[in-house]
Amino acid sequence: MILTVTLNTALDLTYRVRSLRPHTSHRVSEVAERPGGKGVNVARVLAALGHEATVTGFAGGATGQVLREGLAGTPGLTDALVPVSGATRRTVAVVDGLSGDTTQFNEPGPHIAPAEWGAFLDRYEELLPGARAVALCGSLPPGVPVGAYANLVRAARAAGVPVLLDTSGEPLRRGVAARPDVIKPNADELAELTGSHEPSRATQDARRRGARAVVASLGARGLLALTPEGRWRAVPPAAEHGNPTGAGDAAVAGLLTGLLDGLSWPDRLARAVALSAATVRSPAAGDFDRAAYEKLLASVTVTAA
Amino acid sequence: MILTVTLNTALDLTYRVRSLRPHTSHRVSEVAERPGGKGVNVARVLAALGHEATVTGFAGGATGQVLREGLAGTPGLTDALVPVSGATRRTVAVVDGLSGDTTQFNEPGPHIAPAEWGAFLDRYEELLPGARAVALCGSLPPGVPVGAYANLVRAARAAGVPVLLDTSGEPLRRGVAARPDVIKPNADELAELTGSHEPSRATQDARRRGARAVVASLGARGLLALTPEGRWRAVPPAAEHGNPTGAGDAAVAGLLTGLLDGLSWPDRLARAVALSAATVRSPAAGDFDRAAYEKLLASVTVTAA
Repeated sequence: MILTVTLNTALDLTYRVRSLRPHTSHRVSEVAERPGGKGVNVARVLAALGHEATVTGFAGGATGQVLREGLAGTPGLTDALVPVSGATRRTVAVVDGLSGDTTQFNEPGPHIAPAEWGAFLDRYEELLPGARAVALCGSLPPGVPVGAYANLVRAARAAGVPVLLDTSGEPLRRGVAARPDVIKPNADELAELTGSHEPSRATQDARRRGARAVVASLGARGLLALTPEGRWRAVPPAAEHGNPTGAGDAAVAGLLTGLLDGLSWPDRLARAVALSAATVRSPAAGDFDRAAYEKLLASVTVTAA
Repeated sequence: MILTVTLNTALDLTYRVRSLRPHTSHRVSEVAERPGGKGVNVARVLAALGHEATVTGFAGGATGQVLREGLAGTPGLTDALVPVSGATRRTVAVVDGLSGDTTQFNEPGPHIAPAEWGAFLDRYEELLPGARAVALCGSLPPGVPVGAYANLVRAARAAGVPVLLDTSGEPLRRGVAARPDVIKPNADELAELTGSHEPSRATQDARRRGARAVVASLGARGLLALTPEGRWRAVPPAAEHGNPTGAGDAAVAGLLTGLLDGLSWPDRLARAVALSAATVRSPAAGDFDRAAYEKLLASVTVTAA
């Protein structure tokens, strides 16, 4: 199985309104609710691709209960979340029916007590030996030490399990220094980490900081990868119009399954870009359009960069 | 006890953000969560004023469970909500930290099945004989017949229980025809009911449609009341700055307790205006500032209009 870690899981709400007008009252015409947090989204794509995925991290309160019920209803996912006394956060995405644009509100998440963090570390150590790869995804809830990901990267490396880190800010900075196999920053996260807005230079700097491979997601411009085997750029055939929610998480799922399927780096990148583009194209946030994925896979361009 | 009916109860969330910027992502710095829906808010004020209040309506799902736990923690409130299979809706109020303005998102509410509506009618009939007054508050969830309030008004009148109706649109239009003792529309609701934007004329029209007394809430301009005993305008000493959430519900609580305490109409109106202004002044949405209330009570101006 592939292990995904989501320390700040979320119950993701999507609200459709006719038109967002600040400082007025809106009737929400449609409400969608589902388990979220980056690692949960990655696991959902892994399961859809036929891989067994185990989800760990924290869940608590009524929102955590709803999240766990949602995971239980998803074939291929195993729930290994650690219960906490605080309530799992919500995120609210307000979709403007006129423009299609999304306005996002993210709750900070519950405070994690030291004993709860300890219980998570025990669970993680139990799960690692059974994992073929691990993905560490998203922000840290309050109370979790800022060096959390560095610890988790080191534990994975010690267990001989390939580890991908997808986070930002100080947790990313500390995590990179622990030498993860892959990091997958977006352009902003990469610039924040390295101080450089020039992707080519920034990916080099990120590797020097400790990442074995750096896969930078550049939105509609695809992926730029700097790996021990070379440097590539993978670009979708055309810019996709749609909802970019979860596109980065789909790319992570593509990179992980490509690794486990023994694909070359260029083929892994093609898979990641195709999944990502097929996620943008899908009408449901975070889902991918399978027919589009298979068609896109053949038309992604991967070139040495 | 005083019975309050909230057919579309809500779990009210308040999010504080630094500054609301449409089509961007926001970190929510503070989250508050509490039981809501107009009748629930009225009951909370009644309980704070030392009256026993019984809350009925519908609750379901994880959100309904959280709502009921919140009610159980409020002294003076009795939970007589009817369980339903759908989940209680949420409302999200996003408070802009710079301007203090609020942007509101209201979920539509769960679909109520005919058998659930029937179970509510049974519960209402059981509760009426023990009620000294009843307040029917807020919107109807999907599935509840649009003439619901007309039925509930008639049942209260048949049981000899004074009934106040606070709703809008077609449910108000139908409910008024059933001859409630009091309606408390705001300026927009009154204009929608009567077709007149001139409050004096519109209150007369609303009485002709069946309301025994019409108390129109005109925001910072106070209340305009047309009753069998006369016509009054009740005005706070100064416009209050703050959060108007729940100000109308506080006014309803003032009118009900004034009735039960045997106050004259001018004294009831003074109480309603003082409670309403003290709610706007309170930093917590929907709570009233008790010291401000007692001071305001002496300085509300009530004049024959």
